[in-house]
Amino acid sequence: MEVLPQAIRNAVDAFSQLPGIGPKTAQRLAFYLLRSPEALALNLGEALMRLKADTLLCEICCSFSDTQPCALCAGGGRDRSVICVVEDPHHVHVIERMGEYRGLYHVLHGTISPLDGVGPEDIRLRELMTRLAPEEGVAVQEVIVATSPNLGGQATAEWIARLLAPRGIKVTQLARGLASGSDIEFADDMTFRYALEGRKAL
Amino acid sequence: MEVLPQAIRNAVDAFSQLPGIGPKTAQRLAFYLLRSPEALALNLGEALMRLKADTLLCEICCSFSDTQPCALCAGGGRDRSVICVVEDPHHVHVIERMGEYRGLYHVLHGTISPLDGVGPEDIRLRELMTRLAPEEGVAVQEVIVATSPNLGGQATAEWIARLLAPRGIKVTQLARGLASGSDIEFADDMTFRYALEGRKAL
Repeated sequence: MEVLPQAIRNAVDAFSQLPGIGPKTAQRLAFYLLRSPEALALNLGEALMRLKADTLLCEICCSFSDTQPCALCAGGGRDRSVICVVEDPHHVHVIERMGEYRGLYHVLHGTISPLDGVGPEDIRLRELMTRLAPEEGVAVQEVIVATSPNLGGQATAEWIARLLAPRGIKVTQLARGLASGSDIEFADDMTFRYALEGRKAL
Repeated sequence: MEVLPQAIRNAVDAFSQLPGIGPKTAQRLAFYLLRSPEALALNLGEALMRLKADTLLCEICCSFSDTQPCALCAGGGRDRSVICVVEDPHHVHVIERMGEYRGLYHVLHGTISPLDGVGPEDIRLRELMTRLAPEEGVAVQEVIVATSPNLGGQATAEWIARLLAPRGIKVTQLARGLASGSDIEFADDMTFRYALEGRKAL
């Protein structure tokens, strides 16, 4: 017998749509919210209702932003000669958190993936080329491609390198090799091949 | 530099309030929703805003319900001589899902826990006693206490047994012992003691 009231089923169904949240976790979350002060569910509910509407896409770097353009594109103190190209807005935040990089960003919102029907025109490559156009007068000297080390990421990196070759802009890609703290025993073939190819003199 | 827009921070902060969801998972969920069709975030948001307001508490068994009283209390086809007492509304659903139990329920919404300042008057014991009052005319013959096998659950079970002793109603408790499929090697002392005490002839 189904004893779960409709309002709880709605919340469980909606939670279950999220990645990594199965039906059991979804139920646990819904019942937790029912046990907690109502403000908890209302706050989360309101934040989610506003999430997409209140988040802008920066017209320059295509990252998520409160302002137009975003604080990183508008602000000083960044090295404007380097653009780091990432596939997801989240990755801007991930890289910023490390505090190592001082240049600008460009968010593609995806990678080229012919098998999934995603071509170069489906991601924000046009916006990248516009930023790099000679008439823009910005002296970008290097584009660092920081797409993920997989097929789509690699295809995208190579496509960008080809597009920018005639412009005289250096295109680089993040190094691939063994992850720090990992064990060579568990490295996959591809990782080991990159690590071997990219070996350095001690 | 903090690059996360306010709307995303709000969603991340609200997600982080949920059990088992840390800041990193919260961020992953928020960015997933931003990548997905807006309906996903709106549906979850709306479900959460309505969750508590649209969920009733059955006036008989104190379980969550769409109707007053709930379908289980109102409907036929259940054994009305047995009441299973649980500490959380979620447990009604868990037990129903197993399909083994055909009686009624009573939800306490907590267990007695003097250390946390929760006394017998803070949980739905009064409602249980009202249901079992002789003038109600219902022939409840057995109360199965299905509180969790911990200190609070045990204290509550013993309290209920004491309250019902003068009424001539049988009070039972779920068996404790080794969990099916578990390994005796990993059983804790308390579990092993219960398993030994409750041993059965083969």
